[in-house]
Amino acid sequence: MSVDQNAALLVIDMQRGFLSPRSPLCIEGAAATVPACAAVIDACREKGIPVFFITRAYAADGSDVERPRRAAWEAGGKPLSPGCDEEISDAMPEAFGSDGRDYHIVKPRYSAFFATELDLVLRRLGVERVILAGTTTPNCIRTSCYDAISLDYDVTVLSDCTSSKTPEIQQSNLRDMANAGAEVISAAELLLRI
Amino acid sequence: MSVDQNAALLVIDMQRGFLSPRSPLCIEGAAATVPACAAVIDACREKGIPVFFITRAYAADGSDVERPRRAAWEAGGKPLSPGCDEEISDAMPEAFGSDGRDYHIVKPRYSAFFATELDLVLRRLGVERVILAGTTTPNCIRTSCYDAISLDYDVTVLSDCTSSKTPEIQQSNLRDMANAGAEVISAAELLLRI
Repeated sequence: MSVDQNAALLVIDMQRGFLSPRSPLCIEGAAATVPACAAVIDACREKGIPVFFITRAYAADGSDVERPRRAAWEAGGKPLSPGCDEEISDAMPEAFGSDGRDYHIVKPRYSAFFATELDLVLRRLGVERVILAGTTTPNCIRTSCYDAISLDYDVTVLSDCTSSKTPEIQQSNLRDMANAGAEVISAAELLLRI
Repeated sequence: MSVDQNAALLVIDMQRGFLSPRSPLCIEGAAATVPACAAVIDACREKGIPVFFITRAYAADGSDVERPRRAAWEAGGKPLSPGCDEEISDAMPEAFGSDGRDYHIVKPRYSAFFATELDLVLRRLGVERVILAGTTTPNCIRTSCYDAISLDYDVTVLSDCTSSKTPEIQQSNLRDMANAGAEVISAAELLLRI
């Protein structure tokens, strides 16, 4: 990103229901990205870059769970829904802390933009570039990346703040997003610039 | 797809501007899928399965070209826009023929659902499953697949009616869509079922 460009950090789906090995929706590798995500979150707060936490919360009856995921959700303790075990709840890692200036948006599907107010809020803030962190790279990060490009945002994807079930899935998705015009850099590279 | 499920075929971006080697937006491998796409289109028409042609048409001034693609579009003869060379125009292959029952939708971005009436028309028709053909697999096919899942459609992706710049990109994207819950089958497998 250019240093004079208005940016926002989007932290997507970093919740116990995706991080805990006890969740049927656990993404191997996501928990390992928590320290890098926390470092980027802290740096953005310090520099006045808006931080958006975009998370998933399912209804108790599962009426808003994506259809292909519904059976695993039902059988696996209904993660991310009211009344589920705390270990697989929608809570975020304590390492992220909290700041009164943070934005919190709940999304019902993969993309952070799908049926949410995210685009409206980013426009109001004059944001030109979104920086993507969170999980999973092939699903929620990638759909958010393509929607952001479609909505005319520039996109930066943080390679070590995003995660996939396997290294091969991670690499092939970072490649495709770079081919589509996204910038793919590490957390350390971002921290040198902001 | 189950034989009693209402389906629709979506043929995406199969236009000279993406098929011609003379276009800056050419997808290597897309032209080779024209015969398989034509066979599926004919079979769907015969069985009364609605066929949607979802295509791209850019404004002459480029105001609706995706930003990461804008420079290549400008330098490469402004493909898919009024007044461009016929060889890189928005015309579809003659092999697809035409049928008065076909639906035609112009989309401004990657996904067939983004800022189009596609979802409204599919719902009106009672469609439960979309069958995806066209190009490119990592961009327009995949974003359409994820939007379709998000909108509660079942999805079938035709492995040999879709195309990518390299075989590796094609395979990794088919894998990810299968992981997300899409059915990935060949045109021949589809023809045996409908």
